[in-house]
Amino acid sequence: MGRETMRWWGWGDGIGEFDPIARPYFLPWVQKKIGLDGKTIKPVDRSTIHLPEPNIDVKFLDNLKKVLRADQISCDEDVRLCHSYGKSYRDLLRMRMGIVSSSPDLVVYPENHAHVEAIVRLAKEHNVCLIPFGGGTNIVGCVEPRENGKRSVVTIHMGTMDRLLNIDTKSLTATFEAGILGPAIESKLNALGYSLGHIPDSFEYSSLGGWIATRSAGQQSDAYGKIEHMVIALKMASPAGTLITKPTPACSIGPDLNQVVIGSEGTLGVITEATVKIHAVPSHKEYYGFIFPNFASGVEAIYEMVHSGYKPTMIRLLDESETEMAMYTGHRVSTTKHLMQKFQKLVVSKLMGYHTPCLLLMGFEGDLPKIKTSRTHCFKLCKKNKGISAGASAGRKWRKARFDVPYLRDFSMDNMAMVDVAETATTWSNLLNLYYNVQATLSKSIAKMGLPGFVACHISHSYENGASLYFIYACKMIVGKEFEQYNYIKGLATDAIVKYGGSLSHHHAVGYEHQPWFAEEVGETGLIALHGIKKALDPQNISNPGKLMQTEHPTPSIIDGISINSLNIDWT
Amino acid sequence: MGRETMRWWGWGDGIGEFDPIARPYFLPWVQKKIGLDGKTIKPVDRSTIHLPEPNIDVKFLDNLKKVLRADQISCDEDVRLCHSYGKSYRDLLRMRMGIVSSSPDLVVYPENHAHVEAIVRLAKEHNVCLIPFGGGTNIVGCVEPRENGKRSVVTIHMGTMDRLLNIDTKSLTATFEAGILGPAIESKLNALGYSLGHIPDSFEYSSLGGWIATRSAGQQSDAYGKIEHMVIALKMASPAGTLITKPTPACSIGPDLNQVVIGSEGTLGVITEATVKIHAVPSHKEYYGFIFPNFASGVEAIYEMVHSGYKPTMIRLLDESETEMAMYTGHRVSTTKHLMQKFQKLVVSKLMGYHTPCLLLMGFEGDLPKIKTSRTHCFKLCKKNKGISAGASAGRKWRKARFDVPYLRDFSMDNMAMVDVAETATTWSNLLNLYYNVQATLSKSIAKMGLPGFVACHISHSYENGASLYFIYACKMIVGKEFEQYNYIKGLATDAIVKYGGSLSHHHAVGYEHQPWFAEEVGETGLIALHGIKKALDPQNISNPGKLMQTEHPTPSIIDGISINSLNIDWT
Repeated sequence: MGRETMRWWGWGDGIGEFDPIARPYFLPWVQKKIGLDGKTIKPVDRSTIHLPEPNIDVKFLDNLKKVLRADQISCDEDVRLCHSYGKSYRDLLRMRMGIVSSSPDLVVYPENHAHVEAIVRLAKEHNVCLIPFGGGTNIVGCVEPRENGKRSVVTIHMGTMDRLLNIDTKSLTATFEAGILGPAIESKLNALGYSLGHIPDSFEYSSLGGWIATRSAGQQSDAYGKIEHMVIALKMASPAGTLITKPTPACSIGPDLNQVVIGSEGTLGVITEATVKIHAVPSHKEYYGFIFPNFASGVEAIYEMVHSGYKPTMIRLLDESETEMAMYTGHRVSTTKHLMQKFQKLVVSKLMGYHTPCLLLMGFEGDLPKIKTSRTHCFKLCKKNKGISAGASAGRKWRKARFDVPYLRDFSMDNMAMVDVAETATTWSNLLNLYYNVQATLSKSIAKMGLPGFVACHISHSYENGASLYFIYACKMIVGKEFEQYNYIKGLATDAIVKYGGSLSHHHAVGYEHQPWFAEEVGETGLIALHGIKKALDPQNISNPGKLMQTEHPTPSIIDGISINSLNIDWT
Repeated sequence: MGRETMRWWGWGDGIGEFDPIARPYFLPWVQKKIGLDGKTIKPVDRSTIHLPEPNIDVKFLDNLKKVLRADQISCDEDVRLCHSYGKSYRDLLRMRMGIVSSSPDLVVYPENHAHVEAIVRLAKEHNVCLIPFGGGTNIVGCVEPRENGKRSVVTIHMGTMDRLLNIDTKSLTATFEAGILGPAIESKLNALGYSLGHIPDSFEYSSLGGWIATRSAGQQSDAYGKIEHMVIALKMASPAGTLITKPTPACSIGPDLNQVVIGSEGTLGVITEATVKIHAVPSHKEYYGFIFPNFASGVEAIYEMVHSGYKPTMIRLLDESETEMAMYTGHRVSTTKHLMQKFQKLVVSKLMGYHTPCLLLMGFEGDLPKIKTSRTHCFKLCKKNKGISAGASAGRKWRKARFDVPYLRDFSMDNMAMVDVAETATTWSNLLNLYYNVQATLSKSIAKMGLPGFVACHISHSYENGASLYFIYACKMIVGKEFEQYNYIKGLATDAIVKYGGSLSHHHAVGYEHQPWFAEEVGETGLIALHGIKKALDPQNISNPGKLMQTEHPTPSIIDGISINSLNIDWT
């Protein structure tokens, strides 16, 4: 059963990592783009990292041993290390530099809901803090202990709860234990002819419970919704007792408790099981690429497709910069093919006048006649908005590389690049305004550091009323000021997102990294309501303390005592 | 501006009432069906009703007069009377009998959000209770004062807040004040080429705020969702302050506060504004009928249509009994047409063997090519499941009569019939099980009273994972035991709904009539969470006290001191 974690300093287990020999175009491009000088840096040796002594509550542990087997409890240093942080740039940076200031004191491996209930009950009795840990992929600090040694912290590794408990093929629902990871969900369902269709970029290592706790969005959300649209019932072990919601397609019995638990980031309890909507495995899947002269015309094509009633099941529009990046992340091709590609680019650029083209990727899933109808309509709308077909090969390439970005980040960090992301969503009428402003802010903030920068964006989730924007930005690491640099850009990007009307997050959640903006985002009364739920379900604040709604501590300019002012740049 | 209410003892303003001369087939049929003896009963004379003296908080009123004009505050007895109850069978019964034990002490007419904020602030200062009142159509007790004279009760008549505040035609959203009624929403939007498409049976008299507060469902919910799927932002004046959510197509910032406010039934504050999804007025609308040999085959046809990807925008399946009722509620027709209809029925019954046919109604809205495709697919699936086309005339008849049921209820009560409804939703795999068991329970409970009964059901909202069931039941009123009879059947029906896995309510809400089952429905921990929110936003319990989550008082067998045992029937 799933006790695996990713390697302590980066993404994956080492097998899927970015191979610069097979994909030789990326490094020279990025070096030129953001002025890297060819130097590399590796993570510190594991042996140099010494975790603080675990703060173990002996009475809690004694009682815990009556409920769990000895091998379900670990205070092994390697295990604790791997459960210390999530996988944000800041997390990886700290790991690579050997800065591990906070780790869980114990890691436990429950195997069913009753185990979790017992752990929560004991934690309550002994005032021990609990952090649910799915795949550890979160990038806003959701799984990191924030107690600073005050109370004992136990991380609940949920990977050992990965069973398919029930499938109702008539009602098209399936009930899973919450620790199951993406690939296991799909393989269990696919074997029976079904699919969930929730495929976030973190798919390989993220869990159902983690998706629910953070309101995750998958690459096929245009067809199947975000995770909050997929959950029809769930079970959560909270300090006040276990919450069980009823599987019903819709109801009218007060506030929606599913939607209270979804997004609660472990602060209300541990999600142990969930019943989700499933669908038959689509008989056909097709992916295509289209080239647009600019981002705005691609956006218009998406807008029209979304409202045409023939929306693709997946839409991803890369802006000019991200399209450029995509061109350089591919595998080595033969000289002939390389020349052909160059020729194609020349045609697009010179003949069509698409000097900085934007790539739109779209997928169609379902039965063939329906795909054909949708495809015909969507292709028409793309062409109407000056899109040129890039064929199915562009779609195939994207599918093949769709989980690659986090590996690419590790490689970029090896090459001393600072690379991070920021994401949001807004209404259609505000989309380009938000896009241009956040893009400009990111470019300016990198320029203010005196560095050449790379700022890119894609749309990967579209709705009737608006769409998401996902920014990727990179520049050269400022050695010795890595965290200041990170805080500085992250802070300005998030300020701009909120200022220009975007949601604080579309699918990465709040954790503690987004906390400085959270109070404003939900408002004073919203915060009162959330604290009311929190206090009712977890009066001792043992459930993932310091996350989401607890905004006392960090401020935009200071995280963990690192002030952005030490960069000597105006915070404007 | 909308200060109107419906007539005090029944539905509507008298204009739309059921006309037994124009529709002559219903009365003889219902008389025979449930053994009515031709006697009629009229509501008591208005002059015989004397409301209790209003319990006015003088200091509150003095301060209120500084905020509102004199004509925005009323303690007129007629006004108070019309704001005393909703429109459940029990409400109408009490009104018709002149039993008005609880009325608001004042009725106020705010004209904007600031007015409501001021009212809430003063209510908090003076410990005065507030009840938001939209159209007063609720049938589970949501708008009825339950303070029994302890504190002063002010009903906020929201009809005077009926403006369209903003429309974003690019993002397809519109912001309304919450007191606007259904017809005004559609006429304001239609004039601009748009529609909300939320058309509950109560449409003519129900309000946006009321829909949101009770998780309402409209007849076109298959296309546009329930109200909780339409709201993207809202504003609520709560005692703890005003809650404003951000209009965003999707986000990942903790629990969904929209979904906390939606369904809160006024217990957390007064919803004053909402931003909802709109769509272009469909260029074409088509409605058709199909006849099925029985309910199960109709259900199978719906199931297949819902999962075909060519779902109609409206599906309504009447079971055998409701189809029979529908046949008798029509308008007088010429002898020739009558004979033709008889002949058609004979053909269906004798030749096809459909002795107790079921009518399926379906609608298609949108552009013509899409309607054609959907229609072709859906007709095929209906035919596959033994459906016989009843043509567009059946659809037209339904559309014409779609708001008639509450008027028919008044007429039935005039004729001394007890007539009530119960509704629920469940997953597809449990649908027929729930249907047969609730149906059997209703039939048995009427039989136990020694009366011939009428029990019917329809499906009017279908989802990927299940559908709603809406039961209508009737029998002869037991004079002198009207309330005992009502409590008895209602109690058994609701017990059966919950016992056989249905949701306590799909779209009628909880109010106080569903309270006895609420604690079990949401569970102990769910209740703790809800009380946590309530306590945080309304610590004094001034917001619609006694509704939804406050389950101390009523029990299944006793409402308002009327025990079902006085009927001398086993509660089994």
